[in-house]
Amino acid sequence: MSPIAPSSGISRRVLLSTLVLLPALCGLLRPASAPAQTSSGLLPSWSDGPAKQAIFDFVRVTTDRSVPSYVSPEDRIAVFDQDGTLWVEHPMYTQVVYCLERVPAVVAKRPELKNVEPFKTVLSGNREAMAKLSLRDLEKILAATLTGMTVEEFNAEAKKWLETARDPRWKRPYTELVYQPMLEALRYLRDNAYKTYIVTGGGQDFVRVYAEKVYGIPPEQVVGTAGGTKFGYAKDGMPFLTKDAKLLLNDNNAGKPEGIHLMIGRRPLAAFGNSTGDRQMLEWTGAGAGARLKMLVLHDDAAREYAYGPAQGLPDSKVGTFTQALYDEAEKDGWTVISMKNDWKRIFAFEQ
Amino acid sequence: MSPIAPSSGISRRVLLSTLVLLPALCGLLRPASAPAQTSSGLLPSWSDGPAKQAIFDFVRVTTDRSVPSYVSPEDRIAVFDQDGTLWVEHPMYTQVVYCLERVPAVVAKRPELKNVEPFKTVLSGNREAMAKLSLRDLEKILAATLTGMTVEEFNAEAKKWLETARDPRWKRPYTELVYQPMLEALRYLRDNAYKTYIVTGGGQDFVRVYAEKVYGIPPEQVVGTAGGTKFGYAKDGMPFLTKDAKLLLNDNNAGKPEGIHLMIGRRPLAAFGNSTGDRQMLEWTGAGAGARLKMLVLHDDAAREYAYGPAQGLPDSKVGTFTQALYDEAEKDGWTVISMKNDWKRIFAFEQ
Repeated sequence: MSPIAPSSGISRRVLLSTLVLLPALCGLLRPASAPAQTSSGLLPSWSDGPAKQAIFDFVRVTTDRSVPSYVSPEDRIAVFDQDGTLWVEHPMYTQVVYCLERVPAVVAKRPELKNVEPFKTVLSGNREAMAKLSLRDLEKILAATLTGMTVEEFNAEAKKWLETARDPRWKRPYTELVYQPMLEALRYLRDNAYKTYIVTGGGQDFVRVYAEKVYGIPPEQVVGTAGGTKFGYAKDGMPFLTKDAKLLLNDNNAGKPEGIHLMIGRRPLAAFGNSTGDRQMLEWTGAGAGARLKMLVLHDDAAREYAYGPAQGLPDSKVGTFTQALYDEAEKDGWTVISMKNDWKRIFAFEQ
Repeated sequence: MSPIAPSSGISRRVLLSTLVLLPALCGLLRPASAPAQTSSGLLPSWSDGPAKQAIFDFVRVTTDRSVPSYVSPEDRIAVFDQDGTLWVEHPMYTQVVYCLERVPAVVAKRPELKNVEPFKTVLSGNREAMAKLSLRDLEKILAATLTGMTVEEFNAEAKKWLETARDPRWKRPYTELVYQPMLEALRYLRDNAYKTYIVTGGGQDFVRVYAEKVYGIPPEQVVGTAGGTKFGYAKDGMPFLTKDAKLLLNDNNAGKPEGIHLMIGRRPLAAFGNSTGDRQMLEWTGAGAGARLKMLVLHDDAAREYAYGPAQGLPDSKVGTFTQALYDEAEKDGWTVISMKNDWKRIFAFEQ
């Protein structure tokens, strides 16, 4: 109904702030992988401190049958934001990079778009002009690159791009830019019978393409911003589903608890985020009875990753905004802020 | 956006065809339970024959590593329609009975509805007048009884009703009117690493209330017709979700494969249904490569349950319509029709 493309969190500011676009396409996908846990300790990439301790404490009090806060295994649900919580979001959401880089292929199939804005500008490669694209222009780009194809075609296109695209700073596949400590937290929770979900403002179909390989999270446990599909039949009678532009779920802000209710149907016990877009998800998680874990990743490590956000007196990065108000709420309500700089010994698997 | 109440498959004909309403409220819930499998054989309530054999053959060829049709456990998805496939749907969908029986409680809280149609007519108990209610009237009843409350309030109300309501024919809780052979099929598939889902035209939130207890299917594996929710804060700052009347997913007909894509994100290998509303789900399931199981329950047992449907030359029951065209498609495409009369030794757990 609402002709909004099935992506989110995107604004003109995102594009304005980020003109390190279009990294060279080359090479093969090497997904990040977590080393097996050793006897030397759980969560090995976490420094000893309150963040690591909060995870241990939470798991202990929800899995120990002798305490009142014990939770039966079928009720153990943990939710994770993706961009900025599980992988790098700065300076631009990976899915937005994908959409911009898909424009030449879309225009090759639909040559009538070649001289039509905003496609003409994206094809020109003129960054100054691209920076002036309106939000409506960006929506047109998202609609053209994320809808109108069958679900299988989309999956194949996204998979191929992920195998070849490279982040301009690390010169690695985007799927290697996942945070090793969070992979360990995901695994540790699953080892304790937690069902782990991604609850992302990004496109549900996009994240589902790689979530199982990269995070060990199957497609059905990825909740994201979702558009509709349309069932139809090919000439030979074979049924197919086409991705359309109707927005069913804008999985940001209040949309996160709403999406959790729609897709999971019960309140999580643990929630991890990194921005104001995750606030309602953490509040909803925290409002349940018993032990709850609410954690926020603070991007305060300019050397190893990035540092950004008003809560640190830094400029608003336009992605993953961590406001002072969010920081204050975390302090007041006992949420744990994870300092990338201090709480994580290692950021990426490829660092060692 | 579309102000349609989050239920489905309901039409004026449903109401017209069924005036055995409002069974007495008494007693306690005794959920149907399946006996443990014994060495005497798997699927004990199934008669030997093509239907039972089709299930065995499918499981064998998808779980035997030595054959090309082997499927790795994480890809094993099986989907089940609910009304008429897992439990009794005739003469009226249980959820519609729920909505009608909830009207007095809704009016008690909102007395201004007492003299307003269609509530006045439902309160009167005048069945002839109720039979004349329009589809728009029924939508008002669904909206009033399924929306406007918090998700916790709805869950508590539905749970309480299920504990006390009785089916007028068997004088038992509706949750005992589940088909024992299908409980065995669910368990057998799960024992072979299949993840079992309900994909129902009924309300997702309604079915989630009892699916785990009755079918062993957790809330997150129930896909159904779904309305939106609205996140908000109480005066004390506590967040809550209110069920609203916006229809997000009409999980019938083409909506079933669309719902499967939205909520599961991959194509099932096995699908069970009983009506034209399940046709596209079975087609979508069958269109994948490799071994597939497509089964349709035929209600042909007037003595032990009900017999209805044009495919048997019987009147259209208005619920779970099984047309001749569906029967022909099943024959042509190798779907298996389950005869309740011939393929099921026992219908309900309480029969023995």
